[in-house]
Amino acid sequence: MELFEHAKEIANTYHSLQKNICLILEHADAQGTFIEHPWERSVGSGMTCVMQRGKIIEKAAVNFSYVRGSMTPALSKILGEDAESYVATGLSSIVHAMNPFLPAIHMNVRYFLLDSGAEWFGGGIDLTPAYIDIPQTIDFHRKLKSICDGYNREFYPVFKEWADDYFFLDHRDETRGVGGIFFDRQRPDAKMDRKRWLSFTAELAKEYPAIYTRLINKNAEKNFSQENKTWQKIRRGRYVEFNLVYDRGTRFGLESGGNTESILTSMPPEAGWEFNAMPVANTEEQKTIAFLKRGIDWINYSAPNSIR
Amino acid sequence: MELFEHAKEIANTYHSLQKNICLILEHADAQGTFIEHPWERSVGSGMTCVMQRGKIIEKAAVNFSYVRGSMTPALSKILGEDAESYVATGLSSIVHAMNPFLPAIHMNVRYFLLDSGAEWFGGGIDLTPAYIDIPQTIDFHRKLKSICDGYNREFYPVFKEWADDYFFLDHRDETRGVGGIFFDRQRPDAKMDRKRWLSFTAELAKEYPAIYTRLINKNAEKNFSQENKTWQKIRRGRYVEFNLVYDRGTRFGLESGGNTESILTSMPPEAGWEFNAMPVANTEEQKTIAFLKRGIDWINYSAPNSIR
Repeated sequence: MELFEHAKEIANTYHSLQKNICLILEHADAQGTFIEHPWERSVGSGMTCVMQRGKIIEKAAVNFSYVRGSMTPALSKILGEDAESYVATGLSSIVHAMNPFLPAIHMNVRYFLLDSGAEWFGGGIDLTPAYIDIPQTIDFHRKLKSICDGYNREFYPVFKEWADDYFFLDHRDETRGVGGIFFDRQRPDAKMDRKRWLSFTAELAKEYPAIYTRLINKNAEKNFSQENKTWQKIRRGRYVEFNLVYDRGTRFGLESGGNTESILTSMPPEAGWEFNAMPVANTEEQKTIAFLKRGIDWINYSAPNSIR
Repeated sequence: MELFEHAKEIANTYHSLQKNICLILEHADAQGTFIEHPWERSVGSGMTCVMQRGKIIEKAAVNFSYVRGSMTPALSKILGEDAESYVATGLSSIVHAMNPFLPAIHMNVRYFLLDSGAEWFGGGIDLTPAYIDIPQTIDFHRKLKSICDGYNREFYPVFKEWADDYFFLDHRDETRGVGGIFFDRQRPDAKMDRKRWLSFTAELAKEYPAIYTRLINKNAEKNFSQENKTWQKIRRGRYVEFNLVYDRGTRFGLESGGNTESILTSMPPEAGWEFNAMPVANTEEQKTIAFLKRGIDWINYSAPNSIR
């Protein structure tokens, strides 16, 4: 039981960061508010905060959860771990913006602890523009790198590649967006103990709304056409495809009988599908598609001027 | 090789039915046309016909395919069959209508043959209204029953229950729509030989556009509000969830490296997600949700007046 006190402390930190994210995003939107939806189930509890139809933010969610349970054979198999019980806590968030030139963003940090003593952290941040802006993409990656470098200079290159591989739609042969960082099953050790991992994941969750506020300031006022909105819808269709076909959290949540409405707060408010929606050559749409690839070195990318 | 001649004959029948479906749906729409997109891959070929932005039909697809290949270990496992090679042919179609009072419809028939001699048919038709119309739902099920009864009086009750179980969103605890019929792995036997199975599946594919034309005639001119369109979008979101999370054809197709654009022609042109989108009590929206249940005996349902 004492062991699980660690998890409680981590959960408390994540929970307080949830409030911080909501406040900063509300401030940035200047109109929308987050509605709190607490939930309780046999396995634990959580808080789903949702903003819908803000001024800039079309839909945003910030989810916190803290669950405890017995290890089932299915869970043992998924985790590759033997234990009697587990505790897990996580904070995840997503923003879908009204303006097609303002990207969607996603952040998640999580901690898992078994009564066997095994424990690990996971998380990530990634950006999904409908229209790529190269300098902003470079800034985004540099910011993530600087956070990572404060803990371990190997983190950014490894976690960046991991994001490229994870946020990838095999059936489209394209990345979900311009990536970011992703990591899973990171066990604390002498070099990077639990406290430091908590500090790293907390810093990601803290920087996340600040990163997005800068993107809002740069893009939320841009003019856009009906064609831009249509393209955003098509790109959001891809986002839906990723989340329902590949995303481990979504699929595991739905299959294990999780809280459906909370799990699917990640879905965009609107999405569209068009047969063979290939963008015309030499358009901003096509330029964007050309960057939905793995392995782009954004840190050292020599940028032409912003495409917008 | 001789064995595979059967498959060719069945493929020819399905292929000619594809043209028939396109013609009848074009006639019913009176404005939209199907564009033919033939495709060829190493495993075989097919024809994807797509209508987008018709007058009544917002998006429709009619897909024919005929593929041959070697049995891989993965395929053997999925099919639970040992063989060297297989041939498969199928015809599938979907219609998403502009008017929220005109339901979406789906039809699929398919035939599978292994060089071991094992063979089977599968298929189904189901209806997905955003707003339920009880008399129309009864008519729809009675029509399917009358087709089934022409072959075997046990078909309708068994295939209707199968559809209830198949077209079901576990994570929402609701059916995709008002069901219809669904069947798989039906092996020809003395009572119902290959020829008769072909005749049954061909009749389903032939009646399908006629069934939909009647629904068009009854609903396509109905007045609707922006609220009705918003509700249709939310319901289409559920359709997307079903197809990407559960539908075997979609998931198998995407995982096996099929033709993504053809597989995803089933997706609605637009869909939406709203947090906790629960309809208000005593509205037509809520009435519809109340009927998204398994086990409703539509044939003997004693209908109050149409809810519209």
